Amino acid sequence: MSEERLVTQITPKSEDFSRWYLDLIRRAELADYAPMKGMMVIRPYGYAIWENIQRLLDRRIKALGHVNAYFPLFIPESFLRKEMEHLKGFAPEVAWVTHGGDDELEERLAVRPTSEAIIGYMYSKWIQSWRDLPILINQWANVVRWEKVTRPFLRTTEFLWQEGHTAHETREEAQEETLRILEMYREFVESELAIPVVHGRKTDREKFAGAEATYAIEALMSDGKALQMGTSHNLGQHFARVFDIKFEDRNQKLQYVWQTSWGVSTRLIGALVMSHGDDNGLAFPPQVAPIQVIIVPISIGNWKETVLPVANQVKDALGRAGFRVHLDDRTEHTPGWKFAEWEMRGVPLRLEIGPRDVQKNQAIAVRRDSKEKISLDISGLDKKVEEMLTVVQKALFQKALDFQRENTREAGNYEEFKKIIEDRRGFIKAFWCGNEECEARIKEETMATIRVLPLEQPALKAERCVCCGKEAAALAYFARSY
Amino acid sequence: MSEERLVTQITPKSEDFSRWYLDLIRRAELADYAPMKGMMVIRPYGYAIWENIQRLLDRRIKALGHVNAYFPLFIPESFLRKEMEHLKGFAPEVAWVTHGGDDELEERLAVRPTSEAIIGYMYSKWIQSWRDLPILINQWANVVRWEKVTRPFLRTTEFLWQEGHTAHETREEAQEETLRILEMYREFVESELAIPVVHGRKTDREKFAGAEATYAIEALMSDGKALQMGTSHNLGQHFARVFDIKFEDRNQKLQYVWQTSWGVSTRLIGALVMSHGDDNGLAFPPQVAPIQVIIVPISIGNWKETVLPVANQVKDALGRAGFRVHLDDRTEHTPGWKFAEWEMRGVPLRLEIGPRDVQKNQAIAVRRDSKEKISLDISGLDKKVEEMLTVVQKALFQKALDFQRENTREAGNYEEFKKIIEDRRGFIKAFWCGNEECEARIKEETMATIRVLPLEQPALKAERCVCCGKEAAALAYFARSY
Repeated sequence: MSEERLVTQITPKSEDFSRWYLDLIRRAELADYAPMKGMMVIRPYGYAIWENIQRLLDRRIKALGHVNAYFPLFIPESFLRKEMEHLKGFAPEVAWVTHGGDDELEERLAVRPTSEAIIGYMYSKWIQSWRDLPILINQWANVVRWEKVTRPFLRTTEFLWQEGHTAHETREEAQEETLRILEMYREFVESELAIPVVHGRKTDREKFAGAEATYAIEALMSDGKALQMGTSHNLGQHFARVFDIKFEDRNQKLQYVWQTSWGVSTRLIGALVMSHGDDNGLAFPPQVAPIQVIIVPISIGNWKETVLPVANQVKDALGRAGFRVHLDDRTEHTPGWKFAEWEMRGVPLRLEIGPRDVQKNQAIAVRRDSKEKISLDISGLDKKVEEMLTVVQKALFQKALDFQRENTREAGNYEEFKKIIEDRRGFIKAFWCGNEECEARIKEETMATIRVLPLEQPALKAERCVCCGKEAAALAYFARSY
Repeated sequence: MSEERLVTQITPKSEDFSRWYLDLIRRAELADYAPMKGMMVIRPYGYAIWENIQRLLDRRIKALGHVNAYFPLFIPESFLRKEMEHLKGFAPEVAWVTHGGDDELEERLAVRPTSEAIIGYMYSKWIQSWRDLPILINQWANVVRWEKVTRPFLRTTEFLWQEGHTAHETREEAQEETLRILEMYREFVESELAIPVVHGRKTDREKFAGAEATYAIEALMSDGKALQMGTSHNLGQHFARVFDIKFEDRNQKLQYVWQTSWGVSTRLIGALVMSHGDDNGLAFPPQVAPIQVIIVPISIGNWKETVLPVANQVKDALGRAGFRVHLDDRTEHTPGWKFAEWEMRGVPLRLEIGPRDVQKNQAIAVRRDSKEKISLDISGLDKKVEEMLTVVQKALFQKALDFQRENTREAGNYEEFKKIIEDRRGFIKAFWCGNEECEARIKEETMATIRVLPLEQPALKAERCVCCGKEAAALAYFARSY
């Protein structure tokens, strides 16, 4: 009956993916709607995922030599106006501060949609010599983009992210950094979030406003739509010229620096929901799960005297071993209700402990992903739990990878292309002439866009553009996307 | 000569404390001025302190059962208007967003000066039953207050902080939480920042806008002025009534919740500068120092072949042992310049390694605080370094505590009071009648305010108010303050 109740609260995924997503976020208390249009509150259970992402990604960012800093939330309008492409890209989405207290400001301040402009200005003050380079700075911050259509985690007026901003002596170094970060993101998302991605360059039409080239990692959500998971931009010297970021090079000549910027955001939490979730709810990879192990005592007979003390010992032991563990000792819910509840909340591993288990000094372990049940000896439980979590992490990745492979198809001509998109979605690998007109036409007619041009391109022979039939310039991954 | 250069860049503390503070922050690259009035950039060396503060404090906040979440940056004007006292307190300092993209908003949005209003609104949705209580949520965030007079870290238009917001079943629980957090702050600041504080209740005049009572920790900076380091507010039912945060209690009766809120900010970084710094620069307590150990190789002869490899080994060994260690192997600076530079930057411990040290398998350790020098065997260095850092941490606290004790004076009458404030500053312990008029008069005439009313009050007999001479209601700590 309690499982019944859960099902009625969450729309089945197959029935309405979008409703399923929103139901799940609300019901699992990942986030809630704020009273302002397009804004959300990240609730503790959702924020714990962000804390895990921060910890695991920050370690990687620092291992590559970057340091964190904090730049102002507000950017003067004139700064954004300095780089016209950048302004054009962001002006429609900017929230403007016009008053401080009772006073009208002389110049409007943008609430940062991204920080290239303010950071460019500061770098022009900090950089004099090649000895000051590279500058490798990252910032964890909130940003605001006034979006018309919003959806929790995927596109909200305010979101949390990290933005890296680096400056280098040479074009080559900037390009190396751009790709090093792309690879860092790929490895991070695949090994910690268990989400396989394709990666490559964005087309000029899809690139960041002000960048020379944008690279991205893209993943296929379980409804067959692609989600951009992270971007790494080679900014060339655009911002350096605009903000006059010059350095004296090794030959005492003044040069403009070469820059990159890159970021991932709380959108990754949405990706976790849409990649791994099913009709029973969320399924978090152990590496980022807010709770890795949920202990449910079987509350029958004198369980408070027999079962509960053992459950508490197990909790303490696993906690000491470094696991994120929670004991659900509430008396107002049945074990069955708790099973369904914590499945819905995506906890990777459940330990059930009942009176008979206590007698046998064992616990029943149930995997969220496969529902597989095994009994584990309570002594030495931490090693077994560790092993099982590792298995679950890998299984979730493999399942998502299988899905991605099954849903990556080649289209030899436009009819095929349109049919695949209409019937099955997923990624389509197809050749493209390099012309923006074809790109636009495909988008208009199929709602699919070029997600990335893979870095490793096949040697082109007589391949033809899937749209216009002219000579192909590149192989591309197309998909409908969020 | 290089030490000369440093001295000329930093105003001596005794000459002009305020200039010294600003010079040091700029020169040590803790922060820089942003191009917008009153805003700053926290540079990597300064931000690393904030990261250490976050890590050490977050651990304590969670150990007391709190969880983190994230609430929106923007708060509708009507929400602030619901609690008039709160609005009056913050309205003059609010930055207002009036436009999103090209559209004027129907309702202005406040950039959060603090989050009681928006969190109160969300709690009214989340809390139904006593089973939902207590709610113990903390948020790490940026806030904006449009200040007229600003100073890096101490008072800036935007700053970073944590704000805890809790809701409880009873008045008693809320009061316990308020004082538990006050004690957490005291212990944190004293043991990690090595800054001794006095703590107690604020007067009604100085309390938070909307609180029933505000408690604070206050420290004496080395110029004799007090700095408020953290506050913990018992909000009573003010916000619960305004935002209709009700719960069904254990007897099925609807009740308003009892709330608290509390916070510390990047101001703590300013406190570190002003508490421990001297004419040679900063002096960070090891627990929060961005770099705990600086290794300076003595660059003479073939040092790159002899000294540098050993210096690198030492760095790696200390890094592996968990210390924040940096090796300054730059060739463009002399060892003497580096000594002065890293002293100025406040690194608690310097290890000098020269050719003769390499032969003797030793390093010369120099304490930043006492300048004490000893030679240490390179094998087993990590244990010695650990010991020395512990000693430095304690010594910095003791020095600050001695200063605080020397500069806490009792004043029996108003003449004495005025003379102490004028000649020596520091804390003055004096009796007060409890009347706001006396409080205001003292502020007007001496620029001193009541910092706190200590929690443990002496038994009052015939004591008289230091200002009006009427019957005393409480013992108070007075000081001029930031």
